[in-house]
Amino acid sequence: MRYGTLYGVGVGPGAPDLLTLRAIETLKHADVIALPRSSDYGASMAWRIIEPVIGKRSDQERLFLTFPMSKEPVRLRQAWDTAFAKIGERLENGRSVAFATEGDPSLYSTFGYLLCEAQRRWPGIRVEVVPGVSSIAAVPAVLGVPLADGLERIAIIPANYGVDDLVTILNSFDTTILMKIGSEMPKIVDALKRTGLLHKAAYVAKATMPEQRVAADLQEVCTERGDCFAMVVVTRRERSGVLAGEVSPNAVLAQPQVG
Amino acid sequence: MRYGTLYGVGVGPGAPDLLTLRAIETLKHADVIALPRSSDYGASMAWRIIEPVIGKRSDQERLFLTFPMSKEPVRLRQAWDTAFAKIGERLENGRSVAFATEGDPSLYSTFGYLLCEAQRRWPGIRVEVVPGVSSIAAVPAVLGVPLADGLERIAIIPANYGVDDLVTILNSFDTTILMKIGSEMPKIVDALKRTGLLHKAAYVAKATMPEQRVAADLQEVCTERGDCFAMVVVTRRERSGVLAGEVSPNAVLAQPQVG
Repeated sequence: MRYGTLYGVGVGPGAPDLLTLRAIETLKHADVIALPRSSDYGASMAWRIIEPVIGKRSDQERLFLTFPMSKEPVRLRQAWDTAFAKIGERLENGRSVAFATEGDPSLYSTFGYLLCEAQRRWPGIRVEVVPGVSSIAAVPAVLGVPLADGLERIAIIPANYGVDDLVTILNSFDTTILMKIGSEMPKIVDALKRTGLLHKAAYVAKATMPEQRVAADLQEVCTERGDCFAMVVVTRRERSGVLAGEVSPNAVLAQPQVG
Repeated sequence: MRYGTLYGVGVGPGAPDLLTLRAIETLKHADVIALPRSSDYGASMAWRIIEPVIGKRSDQERLFLTFPMSKEPVRLRQAWDTAFAKIGERLENGRSVAFATEGDPSLYSTFGYLLCEAQRRWPGIRVEVVPGVSSIAAVPAVLGVPLADGLERIAIIPANYGVDDLVTILNSFDTTILMKIGSEMPKIVDALKRTGLLHKAAYVAKATMPEQRVAADLQEVCTERGDCFAMVVVTRRERSGVLAGEVSPNAVLAQPQVG
């Protein structure tokens, strides 16, 4: 069987102008745009991002698919099977499907599961991944603080699946990125206090979207249920990359030798 | 003093169509585009990426700046001071400067150092960071293998500054990304053999560029001096995200229940 091409398209963190040219071209030319949303009645964040750029076209199908936010494997499996089967119907008819995914398709995206199953469901199918600007790039851009320089190591931790060893991680890495905050914020704040790093942490929700929220003091947001698009970034900044061996980072910053 | 605005613009991993709309607009409208290169006579990779999209314009300055590949702090400091001073001359004349950086400006980019010094060098200056598609997004897109799903943790390690504890990191994280491979490949291969993860690793150099190279068998590239734009990605894939509690990942993949 000759299937349509399946595309995983990263549409970036939220601002429509953070779409890439390749994402726009791919979305414009696909027969079907698959648009994830978290409930049958909710809006699709991905569509909100791309609509201002590509608009609605009568000859292109917008296929809204529900991927519930859940930790229950049975519920997820069922929803995903339904969604993947709908995509499969289109592919089997030779139509190309662009699965639009917020941020980047390779990082904590539902597209990852679809990619893993694609060759078994549709043998020989052509799959193409269009990388996007991930929230890991957007959050430091919003904060104006680099994630890491040449000497530094980064840990990326999805917080909602456990942060019991967070103190160890914070102490072992120069930069720690906590994704999917969920209800873990009090535990995160506690670990930051224990490591003396609370003042080195920042909270960003919905980076680059109109609803963007930044909190330099994590205690402000500690009692809230963290947004699922929120991240906490902790940068120790004790080194200064390749200059670390020369003088202390503060001395470097305090005495720039201009000219 | 009223300075021109300083922009840090991520131009993506290499393919010109992975530029974002915002990067293109920012680069088009800046008075000066600052273009890093690694030697006074070498080409600027950033310019190679953006030229096909924005082209040369007679009223826009292209300021080529040399940032040598070196681990010697004194040599780097001197080169950076020269480069930053040239940028400063333009900013002090009220001209806007867009510093084009491959990948994303917040991740292992020279722009990070400039960002840290900007407020001291040019007090009150407006700095804007335009996030880009990083190689961390491009490499899994090229490989067709997701970096991580909902349950997985990622470590990002700049290899050229030491990989002595790589075995521990490989054993503690679901996915390990080694950047800046340099001459560390034999040590990396050794650690992968010791952890039994050699077959879970892939090497990608210059992802999305015409010279892109992928090696599924790291032993093929073991004796080469690794490209500075090369990465090794190790994905254990022992879990399958939120489905891990349900059945083994292989069972999930082997028995998709197409609805």
